[in-house]
Amino acid sequence: MTVETKYLTLDKLVLENRQELPSVTVAYETYGTLNAQKDNVILITHAFTGDAHCAGYHEGDEKPGWWDNMVGSDKAFDTNRYFIICSNILGGCQGTTGPSSINPKTGKEYGLDFPAISISDMVKVQKKLIDFLGIEKLFSIAGGSMGGMQVLQWVNDYPEKVISAIPIATTMRHTPQQIAFNEVGRQSVMADIAWNGGHYYQTGNPDRGLAVARMLGHITYMSDISMKEKFPIEKEKEKNTKFNFNADFEVEEYLRHRGSTFVKRFDANSYLYISKAMDHFDVNNSAFLNDKNISIKFLVLSFKSDWLYPSEQSEDIVKSLKLRGQKVTYCNIDSTYGHDAFLLEKENEEKIIKSFLNNLYDEVISGK
Amino acid sequence: MTVETKYLTLDKLVLENRQELPSVTVAYETYGTLNAQKDNVILITHAFTGDAHCAGYHEGDEKPGWWDNMVGSDKAFDTNRYFIICSNILGGCQGTTGPSSINPKTGKEYGLDFPAISISDMVKVQKKLIDFLGIEKLFSIAGGSMGGMQVLQWVNDYPEKVISAIPIATTMRHTPQQIAFNEVGRQSVMADIAWNGGHYYQTGNPDRGLAVARMLGHITYMSDISMKEKFPIEKEKEKNTKFNFNADFEVEEYLRHRGSTFVKRFDANSYLYISKAMDHFDVNNSAFLNDKNISIKFLVLSFKSDWLYPSEQSEDIVKSLKLRGQKVTYCNIDSTYGHDAFLLEKENEEKIIKSFLNNLYDEVISGK
Repeated sequence: MTVETKYLTLDKLVLENRQELPSVTVAYETYGTLNAQKDNVILITHAFTGDAHCAGYHEGDEKPGWWDNMVGSDKAFDTNRYFIICSNILGGCQGTTGPSSINPKTGKEYGLDFPAISISDMVKVQKKLIDFLGIEKLFSIAGGSMGGMQVLQWVNDYPEKVISAIPIATTMRHTPQQIAFNEVGRQSVMADIAWNGGHYYQTGNPDRGLAVARMLGHITYMSDISMKEKFPIEKEKEKNTKFNFNADFEVEEYLRHRGSTFVKRFDANSYLYISKAMDHFDVNNSAFLNDKNISIKFLVLSFKSDWLYPSEQSEDIVKSLKLRGQKVTYCNIDSTYGHDAFLLEKENEEKIIKSFLNNLYDEVISGK
Repeated sequence: MTVETKYLTLDKLVLENRQELPSVTVAYETYGTLNAQKDNVILITHAFTGDAHCAGYHEGDEKPGWWDNMVGSDKAFDTNRYFIICSNILGGCQGTTGPSSINPKTGKEYGLDFPAISISDMVKVQKKLIDFLGIEKLFSIAGGSMGGMQVLQWVNDYPEKVISAIPIATTMRHTPQQIAFNEVGRQSVMADIAWNGGHYYQTGNPDRGLAVARMLGHITYMSDISMKEKFPIEKEKEKNTKFNFNADFEVEEYLRHRGSTFVKRFDANSYLYISKAMDHFDVNNSAFLNDKNISIKFLVLSFKSDWLYPSEQSEDIVKSLKLRGQKVTYCNIDSTYGHDAFLLEKENEEKIIKSFLNNLYDEVISGK
């Protein structure tokens, strides 16, 4: 299917930290058809460096959206039945307002004048988009990794708006190790003198620092096993005589490639702001569904080889929800893909999500 | 005990890759007393960024050597009984010749004119030191991490010189993930424009890139659990209004500190050369002890929370040695410290090593 990105411009946005943005543009895409009752809506929330383009093809593109194997006709998120919405997050750089956007007060890019943002702020913008579309309630909201944080934040901030929620490969808060990986990425960006205190839009991007951050990210997205499968090591044919800059091993080549392609599509300041939002995310100690009158159906998914957001963190989510009397289905899916499994482990993930959604659809919507 | 570093200068060294170094200086320290038979010698090999100073205090120093909890009177490596030798590796920057040393041909630092080196070259230099000291055979050789690689390389290259060997928290070869972590560290150093193709000795060190590499290293040296124990997360008191450069979390502060102190003591080019030597290390497919007439006693140690050199890699070493008919004792020690456990988990490590060495001493030396 050919799709296109739409844009909505919102008025003044007051952030969680009381700072204000005079206006916010939201990039979003929709797939499928909104029914007359407007009760077949699923919101997809994206991960750290994702965007609004989760399915279908943009005119002329060779590659589809980032979750195209899960979103479409007869897929996990079935566009024959559901109206799917996906928007780029606040602070991002793929159409929604972020640090690389023009500050209307100065006529220049925000850079570090962009206020600090939280996962709750991202969700607030999504809520305004939903309001604009005249949607009262979300049939479901689903996302992996930082997308899963947004799912949990939605449930926390607007529980009355959510019928079901699918947090995937995520956590209620970052551990010190998760913060540490993000911090090394940030320090790598800021160590690049091209970063220049965030003022690089006229002088050239800190591509080298950002590429290193991305390379590190990729290690954490894969697993030890998936790396062994992808890069069966062949040792060099002859000993290097000089230290050289070639990639001696396939994994080096691969990471360098991922780093250099990433910097073409992502803004370094967005990288800093979004990773900080993740590190400060914490629904562990929040009021989080303490109102027993609210009942949301949860499907929690994790993947056995994911060591960035390990299964224990999903088990903690399940435990917290159960303690609050919520209905929770949990699957810890077999996979060697590591954290990337939520994007790649199509077959099992699709079956589980499809059956969860369809059962619920029969119960909630067809049964009306 | 007060100790001092000694220096030996060797003539021309031919490297594994056929390149030559016109002369090599080796920094080394010794502790305890060499007996008349010269048969009480233990060689300690150091990890990536270690040095020759593994025990005791240098005149005026407040901190002892890096393995002082294991090397000394009545300790695991008992200086009352054994003569302990530790030397800085070839390619290093703490007294032994490396890329920051002066190239006698040019009168300037080698930089990238330094030839590529291997773990086997490091061991060759140690062998020359042992020869110089008139020692025929090593009673034992012990080291953790890259120190363990040197132990295995000694056994491979000079099996007739080794009575016992203690490889700790190490591997026979790097996996793609282990290479990947090293590669991100290297790319971080080389991304710093101060690195300047390796020619920075007159213009200022690539401290920022090297610090980021070290921060990443520290994450891999600790465990998820040890980080949680060391940094119980306290969330910030109030929400940040602006993106700032403060460390919001203790773990960030800690890593930044470790990065900034590291660059004061370590040379960035040494970092590149040594990490490459590790990545190319491979005794998995070598002739490694295929001569059944050679019999060495092995003590292989690993630590349960070590995810950089996980226990399975030590189990692979054990399996390989057993298949070759060698005598192997293996302990997988309980610890939450991660890879750093070989430096920190004193009590159990000491008991196991002490008993292994003393039993062997009774058998081999006292029994003569």
